[in-house]
Parts: sequence; C-alpha cells; structure tokens
Amino acid sequence: MATMKDVAKRAGVSLGTVSRVINHAPGIKENTLQKVEKAIKELNYIPDEYARGLKTKSSRTIALILPTVWYPFFSEFAYYVEKNLDKKDHKLLLCNSNGDPDEEAKYIKMVKQNKIDGIIAITYSDIEQYIYSNIPFVSLDRYFGKKVSYVTSDNYQGGCLAAEELLKHGAKKLAYIGSYNKYTNGTMLRRNGFRDYLYERDMEYQEIFLMEPVADFTPYIIEMMKKAPDIDGIFCHNDSLLLIFRPIIEKLGYKVPKDIQLIGFDGMNLAADLPLGVSTIVQPVADLAKGAVELVLRKITDPTIKNETKIYPVKFFEGNSTK
Amino acid sequence: MATMKDVAKRAGVSLGTVSRVINHAPGIKENTLQKVEKAIKELNYIPDEYARGLKTKSSRTIALILPTVWYPFFSEFAYYVEKNLDKKDHKLLLCNSNGDPDEEAKYIKMVKQNKIDGIIAITYSDIEQYIYSNIPFVSLDRYFGKKVSYVTSDNYQGGCLAAEELLKHGAKKLAYIGSYNKYTNGTMLRRNGFRDYLYERDMEYQEIFLMEPVADFTPYIIEMMKKAPDIDGIFCHNDSLLLIFRPIIEKLGYKVPKDIQLIGFDGMNLAADLPLGVSTIVQPVADLAKGAVELVLRKITDPTIKNETKIYPVKFFEGNSTK
Repeated sequence: MATMKDVAKRAGVSLGTVSRVINHAPGIKENTLQKVEKAIKELNYIPDEYARGLKTKSSRTIALILPTVWYPFFSEFAYYVEKNLDKKDHKLLLCNSNGDPDEEAKYIKMVKQNKIDGIIAITYSDIEQYIYSNIPFVSLDRYFGKKVSYVTSDNYQGGCLAAEELLKHGAKKLAYIGSYNKYTNGTMLRRNGFRDYLYERDMEYQEIFLMEPVADFTPYIIEMMKKAPDIDGIFCHNDSLLLIFRPIIEKLGYKVPKDIQLIGFDGMNLAADLPLGVSTIVQPVADLAKGAVELVLRKITDPTIKNETKIYPVKFFEGNSTK
Repeated sequence: MATMKDVAKRAGVSLGTVSRVINHAPGIKENTLQKVEKAIKELNYIPDEYARGLKTKSSRTIALILPTVWYPFFSEFAYYVEKNLDKKDHKLLLCNSNGDPDEEAKYIKMVKQNKIDGIIAITYSDIEQYIYSNIPFVSLDRYFGKKVSYVTSDNYQGGCLAAEELLKHGAKKLAYIGSYNKYTNGTMLRRNGFRDYLYERDMEYQEIFLMEPVADFTPYIIEMMKKAPDIDGIFCHNDSLLLIFRPIIEKLGYKVPKDIQLIGFDGMNLAADLPLGVSTIVQPVADLAKGAVELVLRKITDPTIKNETKIYPVKFFEGNSTK
C-alpha cells in the first residue's frame, strides 16, 4: 500500500504539504492542492484515520441519542439525520438510550475523548450533564430555554390546530388524552395549545392526563365516556396513543369517525411509502433533522457561537379518523 | 487534564506499562494492572482515542448498512444490533444505503482505514466488493452460499407454514402475492416453500410475482380476482404488502378475514409495545441481531475463522387477518 512519502514524492512536494492537504489545512495553493490530490488518486493512497485524527482532533462523526430507533417517528428522524450528515461527509453513531442517563453519559465521554464531534439527542438526562461538559449538542423536543440549542415543532400551535380542526369537522364535545413525565418537553405544549384554544372560546372539554408509564388507559377511557357519553371529538397527544385508543373506543360501541372523531400528533409514517392513515398533526421531520444537523455542525466549527432555537410549523393531515 | 505521564508517575511504573494497560495488551501482572487502573481512576485520566487507535488499530465500532432504518422491520433489527454491540462495549455506525452500492463502498473503505472494525449489512452490492476486501462482514437476508457469513430466518419454512396455516384456517383456494429483484434473497424462498407445500398436496394456486419496483399492484389484483373470484386465502410476501393489498381487496367487495384471509411475513411491530396486529409469519429479529453481532465480533477477533451461516426458525402469529 502507498504511504504518505510515496504521495509526496510523486507530487513533488514535502511530506508536511501532503499532511496539510489531507487534514484540510487552510492556505494551500490551488496548484499544490491539485498536484497532491492527483498523486493520492493515482497511488490509491488511503490516509490512516487515527494518524489523521491525532492532527485534526476531528472524527467527522455525530452521535444520535434516541429513546429507541424502533418507533416510526424516531426512525424517520434518524433516517433524515444520517442523510443530512452524509451530505456533509459526516457519519452517524446510533444510541438507543431507553431513557437511561448512563447510556447518554457514555457518549458525552466519547466527545471528550475526541471519538465523536458532537451529539444530537432526545434526552432524558439532567441538562447539567450537557451544559457543564460544554460539548456541541443539539436537543430535539425538550425545552431548555437558552441553555442549549434545540429544534422542535411548534407543539403549541399543533394543539390549537387539533382543537380548530375537530370543531371544523363538526365535533362539539371535545376531549384530550395524553400523558406526561417529569421532564419538560414539547408534548405538554400540545395540551396547552388545545386548552387555550377552547378556553378562549369558552368551551369546556374532558381530559385524561396521566403520569407515565401508563400500563392501561382502558379504565380511564371507560370512566370518561360514562361521565360524558356525548364526547364526539378527541385529541390524542400522539399517533401511537390514537392507535391504542381507537379499539378501546370502538369496543364501547362508538364508530370512528362517525360517532367520535380522533386527531393524533406526529404524522407518523411506517416507512417513506407507507402512511399510517390516521388524521393527525404532522411534524416536519425532514426539516427538524436538517435543522439539528446544521446547528450541531455550526457549533463544532465555531464553539463560541450562541445557542440557537429553531421552531418549525406543523400542519393538519386529513386521514381516516375524521369525517 | 491528566496525562499518561501523570498516571505512570502516580502508579510508579513506566510509560510503556501504562500504554500496555490502556491497550489491553496481554501478559501484564495483576498487581501492576491494579496499580495503573487505580491511578487512572484517581486522576480521572481519559486516554485519547486517536492515540489509542494508533496502537490497537481497533475502533470498537461496527457499521450497520440497511436500505433504510425508516421501516419497522429494519428499525427493530437496528435497535437489537445496537443493544447487543453495547453489551460488548462496541458502538454502531448507521448507514441508510437506499440500495446504493456507492454508499456501501464508503463503509468498506472505512474498515480499511481502521475507522471501523466490521460491517453488518442488508446489502444490494455485488458480493465481490466484500469478498475481495476481506473485511469482517455479516450479511442479513441475502444468500451468498459459503462465500460470506450470514444470518437469516428460515424463509422456506415460513412459506410452507403460511400455506399450512391458511389451509388450517379453512381457506381452500390460495394465492401468493410478491415481488423480486435481481439479487438472490430470502424473500424468494418464501415463495418456494409456499409453492412446494401446495405442489406436494396436488393443490393449484394463483400467483402475482412482479419485478421491483412495482408502482401499483391494483390492476394485477383486479385481474387475478376476476380470473379466480373464489380465492379465499392469500400469502403476502411481507407485512407491508399485506397492508397495501388489504384496502384494494376490500374495495373489490371482499371482507377480510371473512371472505379472504391474509397472512403476511416479518411479524412487524411499529414499536416494542405497538404490534401491527395482522396475521403473519414472525421472524425472530432479536435472535437475528444477536447472531449477526456474534458472528462479526468473532471474525474481528480471529480473521482466519471460516464463514458461518445461522438460520433461525419462524413461527405463526394469529392476528386480525385470519379467522
């Protein structure tokens, strides 16, 4: 195999010049650059990644930390993050954290070791871990204020939109079903948007809002429908909850969407060409991924830049669970 | 931050000894090992990954190449591969190839550069690329004979089982719907198993078997049902095709499963707690992932070992598309 010396000899330049070309050092003359690149190509020279890493301290690798990639919304996000990184000649390291902060800590350590350059995460860790380690980091969904960069859909607008669409589709007695955990995340804003939209119009609504994990929603739904049997429109805080509720409601004798209309959140697709088909508020996943990649790469290039927030608008998709 | 020198000084050993401990070199005395590890811990010393890589030529990273992670069967496989690698202190690099051999070539090059140690792939490349590069490599689903290691479900058995279950559930006129591409893969064996099971029993069946990509199955299904309107059991070569066919068949006036029973293949779950609910032949995804990780790590440890094949049994899941 060709060595760096062979490349220098063929290109007629010094070893240092070849090294600077390989490590993308600035200020190299166009003419020199071409000579070296030609020699590299002709000799089929492959720079050793570790030798290169020692100089540049860059791995061109980003970790993506998700609760699990085995969930359509997250796998779509992972797909687009990898595609956007690939365009910028970066690789993606995948971590399924299952919500375990110790798993996340492993990747924070890797950034310190120069094994990876930065992290994009849907995180359940205490934010301090990220702030104090001062690494290039972008969060999806969780709201950290100005302390870290994050991308998110406009969840509040989505909650308003769900209420608006249910009313537009003829529903009169609305309800919200969702859950929460101890972390502040975007999902809560969906509830706030829904609530505020109805409060402003002096409309009451029913609600099921439970602390996670929820083993079974069935008794709560039975209870709610007993209390308010004329409910005809329900906003479910995500699409997978809609999938879970639908058979419960139908078992109670209601037809969807004839008797009760349902709107979910996420706009989940099983795959690029396999939509879920339910009525839902769609998050722009491709945009979220593109934004997250832009933010993390910018922070790697210039660690002094301020943290940024990118909020993306959502839209309604007319599926089979509304009339 | 502490350096290797600091560790050597505190442990009272030479720099070389510290280096050998960090790089897991064999033959270090237990007593020495403990002294060095104690010093590392006390000083909170983090070895630079690149300096370490230069010595060990090991990145403890495996690339997983999939057509796309944005598909429930693949995202489940990716989830379990990462979990199994994590147990062995290895990381996962994710590549969505979209079936592009150039994308795969990037990762083969990375193995040569010592940037990653091996590859697990659902590949659509010419096999030669992998054989000639002689890298630790395990294939899922594609059959390469003895030329490379692979893990796969028993697709042939699955095809037999689909026929057997349709007949057991009372179907009398069977059909198969599937597609193929220019690569030999497990999916074709599903068809063979189905065919052979019925041939052995002197039973005829209808078939739609099209070259990929298929824009729309609708006209073919209409044609088949016109030709054989008494078809009452269909084996679809995977679950996503079942999801696509079901509404087409229902639009023709048939009820599923009352008039026509459907069995898919894969046993896809949207997420760990979100089954698809259709009747299907289930692949043991967790086992496939575990097997793939075992094979690739064994090959990395000992490049001289022979290629291996692991074939896993499938089972039937009783869902809502059979009676």
